[in-house]
Amino acid sequence: MADAALFEFLHMEMVAELWAHHSDPGPGGQKMSLSVLEGMGFRVGQALGERLPQETLAFREELDVLKFLCKDLWVAVFQKQMDSLRTNHQGTYVLQDNSFPLLIRMASGPQYLEEAPKFLAFTCGLLRGTLSTLGIKSLVTASVASLPTCESGGWGWGNLPNPEVRWGLRVLRPLPPLRVGEAGPGLPSPTYIWGI
Amino acid sequence: MADAALFEFLHMEMVAELWAHHSDPGPGGQKMSLSVLEGMGFRVGQALGERLPQETLAFREELDVLKFLCKDLWVAVFQKQMDSLRTNHQGTYVLQDNSFPLLIRMASGPQYLEEAPKFLAFTCGLLRGTLSTLGIKSLVTASVASLPTCESGGWGWGNLPNPEVRWGLRVLRPLPPLRVGEAGPGLPSPTYIWGI
Repeated sequence: MADAALFEFLHMEMVAELWAHHSDPGPGGQKMSLSVLEGMGFRVGQALGERLPQETLAFREELDVLKFLCKDLWVAVFQKQMDSLRTNHQGTYVLQDNSFPLLIRMASGPQYLEEAPKFLAFTCGLLRGTLSTLGIKSLVTASVASLPTCESGGWGWGNLPNPEVRWGLRVLRPLPPLRVGEAGPGLPSPTYIWGI
Repeated sequence: MADAALFEFLHMEMVAELWAHHSDPGPGGQKMSLSVLEGMGFRVGQALGERLPQETLAFREELDVLKFLCKDLWVAVFQKQMDSLRTNHQGTYVLQDNSFPLLIRMASGPQYLEEAPKFLAFTCGLLRGTLSTLGIKSLVTASVASLPTCESGGWGWGNLPNPEVRWGLRVLRPLPPLRVGEAGPGLPSPTYIWGI
């Protein structure tokens, strides 16, 4: 019946509860609620990571870890795979979900874009926490590429495009020493690894 | 991988977060956190109930609704059925789970009994909310029949008995009018309907 829905409803309640109780409407209060949600996601991600079978944890390459997030983690949490994964091969990854489930029920229109961060913070933490258990320190951000908007031709969710979310993931590692007078390495454009 | 675990971890984080922020350690603060958790459970239960297929909603008897909670709802949320259901046939039901998943990870020993309510409040609300969508107003309480305790012979979860929880469920309905001089109906002892 309702496994996937259970997580979605619970997540929605959690967001509502945090916004109701940290009632400072200014940017400070919102930032605190986002940080609380991100922290909860981080600890849930860590705990999920610890339940992985030992052989799964023996990833040889960073890219394998990222593919694992896009496939296994996403299926476990959202019952679908991430739609694409890109990287610049220097520790920056862009993961794209063309129909992010936690935003699908959101009201349509660009004016709701400012509401989106509260529905993304938990999942940012979830990615960062799972990566942390797998031995990778990271910074994770999210941006909404498009929200459902009402197209001409009728109302109703059936007609609406799906919410696209891009997760930016920067692996934190010590920089190699620079020799005097030498420029640092430039960042090449991200290249597609997998997906559409 | 982790669907069931996801709900358990998220529930644990939610409890921890509520107790960290409603930091009044007195009974007033605790009662408020319990009531917030119960309210979240209620709304999640309501929402889950609304997703049921229409034919499921056409229960003829109250008892069918209760059996539905014990079987379908419990499987959807906890991946197991309730262990038994008793009733006095007058609107009082006792549902027993001999190994309630949200208490299994709890530390052992009777001194932790006082911590148990915070791990039961959400589920009390969940039952009440689902019943509400199915058209039944109710009061739901929970009591812990036994918590894991360390038995002689060794430590480790493998040796511990499972936490037993009993959910007391009282259907609220208008009382039949009493005629003057007549005693109200007595409450017969609960009889087993189903389960061990």
